Amino acid sequence: MFIDKKTKLTIPFGINGEPWISQIPEMAFSVEGELMITPPSADPAVIYQIQNREFMGQQEQIKECYVQLPPRGQQENQVSNQQVLQGYLQQQQDNFLGYQLVVNTEYSDLFPAMNTMINNLGDPFTNGYYTVNSKPAERAVLDFYASVWRANWPSQNTGDPDSYWGYVLSMGSTEGNLYAMLNARDYLSGRRLVVDQNNHHLVKPKRRSSNKNYYKPIAFFSEDTHYSLTKAIHAMSIPSFYEIGSEFYPYECPLGGDWPEQVPSEQPSIEEANLGKIGSGAIDIEKLRLLVEFFAKKGHPILIVLNYGTTFKGAYDDIPGVYRALKDIFIKYDLINREVCFGDNHDVDVRQGYWFHIDGALGASFMPFINMAMKTGELNRENCSECSLKFPEFDFSLPYINSIVTSGHKFLGAPTPCGIYMSKHKYLATTNHPSYIGAVDSTLAGSRNGLASLTLWSLLGKTGYKELQARAIKSLSMALSLHARLKTLGDMIMERDGIDIWLHRSDFSLSILMRKTNKDITFKYSLCEAKELVSREGRSYSRQYVHLYCLWDRKESALDSLIEDLSQPGAFDMNCETELDSSSELLSASVN
Amino acid sequence: MFIDKKTKLTIPFGINGEPWISQIPEMAFSVEGELMITPPSADPAVIYQIQNREFMGQQEQIKECYVQLPPRGQQENQVSNQQVLQGYLQQQQDNFLGYQLVVNTEYSDLFPAMNTMINNLGDPFTNGYYTVNSKPAERAVLDFYASVWRANWPSQNTGDPDSYWGYVLSMGSTEGNLYAMLNARDYLSGRRLVVDQNNHHLVKPKRRSSNKNYYKPIAFFSEDTHYSLTKAIHAMSIPSFYEIGSEFYPYECPLGGDWPEQVPSEQPSIEEANLGKIGSGAIDIEKLRLLVEFFAKKGHPILIVLNYGTTFKGAYDDIPGVYRALKDIFIKYDLINREVCFGDNHDVDVRQGYWFHIDGALGASFMPFINMAMKTGELNRENCSECSLKFPEFDFSLPYINSIVTSGHKFLGAPTPCGIYMSKHKYLATTNHPSYIGAVDSTLAGSRNGLASLTLWSLLGKTGYKELQARAIKSLSMALSLHARLKTLGDMIMERDGIDIWLHRSDFSLSILMRKTNKDITFKYSLCEAKELVSREGRSYSRQYVHLYCLWDRKESALDSLIEDLSQPGAFDMNCETELDSSSELLSASVN
Repeated sequence: MFIDKKTKLTIPFGINGEPWISQIPEMAFSVEGELMITPPSADPAVIYQIQNREFMGQQEQIKECYVQLPPRGQQENQVSNQQVLQGYLQQQQDNFLGYQLVVNTEYSDLFPAMNTMINNLGDPFTNGYYTVNSKPAERAVLDFYASVWRANWPSQNTGDPDSYWGYVLSMGSTEGNLYAMLNARDYLSGRRLVVDQNNHHLVKPKRRSSNKNYYKPIAFFSEDTHYSLTKAIHAMSIPSFYEIGSEFYPYECPLGGDWPEQVPSEQPSIEEANLGKIGSGAIDIEKLRLLVEFFAKKGHPILIVLNYGTTFKGAYDDIPGVYRALKDIFIKYDLINREVCFGDNHDVDVRQGYWFHIDGALGASFMPFINMAMKTGELNRENCSECSLKFPEFDFSLPYINSIVTSGHKFLGAPTPCGIYMSKHKYLATTNHPSYIGAVDSTLAGSRNGLASLTLWSLLGKTGYKELQARAIKSLSMALSLHARLKTLGDMIMERDGIDIWLHRSDFSLSILMRKTNKDITFKYSLCEAKELVSREGRSYSRQYVHLYCLWDRKESALDSLIEDLSQPGAFDMNCETELDSSSELLSASVN
Repeated sequence: MFIDKKTKLTIPFGINGEPWISQIPEMAFSVEGELMITPPSADPAVIYQIQNREFMGQQEQIKECYVQLPPRGQQENQVSNQQVLQGYLQQQQDNFLGYQLVVNTEYSDLFPAMNTMINNLGDPFTNGYYTVNSKPAERAVLDFYASVWRANWPSQNTGDPDSYWGYVLSMGSTEGNLYAMLNARDYLSGRRLVVDQNNHHLVKPKRRSSNKNYYKPIAFFSEDTHYSLTKAIHAMSIPSFYEIGSEFYPYECPLGGDWPEQVPSEQPSIEEANLGKIGSGAIDIEKLRLLVEFFAKKGHPILIVLNYGTTFKGAYDDIPGVYRALKDIFIKYDLINREVCFGDNHDVDVRQGYWFHIDGALGASFMPFINMAMKTGELNRENCSECSLKFPEFDFSLPYINSIVTSGHKFLGAPTPCGIYMSKHKYLATTNHPSYIGAVDSTLAGSRNGLASLTLWSLLGKTGYKELQARAIKSLSMALSLHARLKTLGDMIMERDGIDIWLHRSDFSLSILMRKTNKDITFKYSLCEAKELVSREGRSYSRQYVHLYCLWDRKESALDSLIEDLSQPGAFDMNCETELDSSSELLSASVN
């Protein structure tokens, strides 16, 4: 190891700026005087500051010197440094508006649990040998959701393959999407299922398929889908229709032209587009149908991921509409009930040739309570303009849904990323069974966050349907009223500066989009940036938007101060629309 | 939806045993009187109790009625129900001895953080637009570990491809293993790397490989490896040598006979075996070498996973020994520097044809401080019998290490599963870059647990090397002294009952194995069960063991009471060794 003693060891480190080398206890030098750890090769404070230049706003961010950890520890500075960090978090929390999650939470009843390592190792329905777990609470949370999502509950390992199976996630909906893609791949590509293990529903094969694509599922999802899906199918080696299409059938895209990377979302009408409007963010069902048919015809099983609340626009795919459009294709190409052969014994069972996964990170927790409010008349056309719309269905009452994921830290407001994945026993692929935890390793994580289950349990126990519905209604009302305030503001700005703030809100969405704001505003309210493609009068433009999400925890003071800040000249970015010439690569909306 | 009103709706639910149907608020019935949620199809308390019969011990477990969540919430019972749950956790925590993690933690300084949703969205080195994050603290934790693991730090996005890259995990080491397998697969199968993007180290190809296996990595790991590895390579579609071997070369296993599912671990000598001794749990290097050579010869890149502390026996693979044994194979089959071709432009770079991933869930956090204690003489042959052994090296001071994972909830004692994954910039495969979070989506999780980073930061800041070393020494001393106490106990039991308690402890291990205990003891101390294969005098036996882990948080009272409980007649299971006849399928040690 080369150490440039002059420059490297004297790098100032920590709150007092003492040289790094002076903060190493004796124990890091061997008896021969050799330094047993690596010194910094450059000043971390400088490096990390440079790498984050673009995020430096007017407000104070955390300086690296407050957080740096010298080998001897932070010592007497620990308490004050931690206060600086918490002060920063509180500041950003108070003004938070940007993302689709609740930041202001109240869990003082769970403080004691921070002093226990609660680990829900392996399957939630088997307690296992690791007894410091909150699995009973996890099961209660899952049962609660199963009832709301109209699944068959309780979860039964044996006896009822229609009953739900699921677990509380430790990573948020991304873990659920990863798990869903893995299970869907194994199911569609003919791996043995848990229900196959007792052999009771195996059949004798009618004929063996000779189609080389028979066990090669292909994934379809819209350009408004969360980026974790791209990662999940890459990780699980599931090709998208784009990959297979552009590699093997480059000139045959049924939509004409080159294969799109994702299924296109609904576009605005020409009239709307010419007014500068953008689409809702929901999947274009007709285009999806054409794409699916192309691959179903070639014998591929079909993996469909639909959004119940897209990340950026908060749009709801029309799930029953998608199924209606695809059902005839599934029948025609024998994907409703197909024989699947697996294992060394060449066992055969009959299962679906398609999988519907619903990413309901926000929507699958929020919308059931809006549905109840609409169906009981609590929300109606008089008190809510949204009530004239048809409620978008998504749950297990639709018999073709295979899996649903939702986040616990979005609508519900857990203090750490978590969530719920749910499917049915009859779809569950086999996993290994390590004897020493005393539970099947049926989840993606091994050690699972038991505090997350306890948190959701405490939350649902304290709120119940009544408070959850009140929070759902509050969120939706806030979105409607803030949208109205921003519309007034937009009219003022149009008049004053001649700038369109591009206000957009999709149906039932808690997300409001507008023209990109200046850096200070983006940072202050944690607004979220993204690009959108717009086309009008035959030309294409790339636009930069920000969005904010209305959720029940938002502070009125933050909403008021946002309106105030946005009404100042210079609040919006004037140069965030670029015309794309026809030769330039079209910026795909997939970057969203 | 079919509802059998008589039997299903009257299922007793919750602490007062009221019928489920009576605990549904009005809002769950539509104006037409339709129930909008699914009722239970069976009594969940009965179902979950049946499914967990085998875990019912003498001590009280949580009854489902305390945790069930009626639609109207737990109401006035919430507080007392939660106390029951916490009481159970405290009871199990006080006696906890079984698993390799710290359960007794103290984080009162972080209670306020439980009331904020801290989310470290995307790459740790870019703050991003989600400002309520603890990324500065995360970077400090990573830098701290990089120094201890002798990596090049700080982490530099540009300019120093040798510098480390890593992140704090939200799921524990399983997430790190998943990530490592994904990155290793992409690296070895020729995906473009982040460092390739600026093109500066691309080369002109000498010749294009025509070997069909050139981009097909094969995974090797020992039978003592954590079960998450099997899941990880299945998820990432990476074949193990067993899968390819048994499918394509069924009669050619270089070890003779059928292909083993994993690389065998070291076996005891015949003399030791005849005395009933079991192996250390470390990988058998000579067998690994034979297996690797077989596949290297066929052109496959080689993915090696080594254990730095196996889960059950706490054994350390001899990592430098493995590399020494394989280096000539890597040279011979051109795996040191090989040309890799990728992308539409057929760019070429030169990279390794092998990957070494180290699973150091416990060991990579615990052992560096033992190393320091040995090298500074704090631990020596006088005060620690282990000091006559060679220290097992594992970190980035070995230039062939590609990735290391450790858990934050094991040696360190975080209250939720978390951990650290670390690799180097030069190995990082490209990932997508969703514009709207303002950070690269370079981690497996999307939303990441910011509280976990804050916890580790607080912990390392409060402890520093000194306290961490004290805890490491305390753990090791406890293991040595408890092993001695159990040896005395074993001698007594042998004399009293003629039973061998099969005491085993591997070098530097905090794990102590012994004969399976009765259910009550297993439950009381959360002991962990596993099977081991033993061979003596030409016969094979399957034995059931339990293990316990000595960690610095264990309560003296629990250790004393364990010795007391174990000395009672009936403490050990008399019938937990089964002779395997030669025709029966050998129980692979892989079930560990």
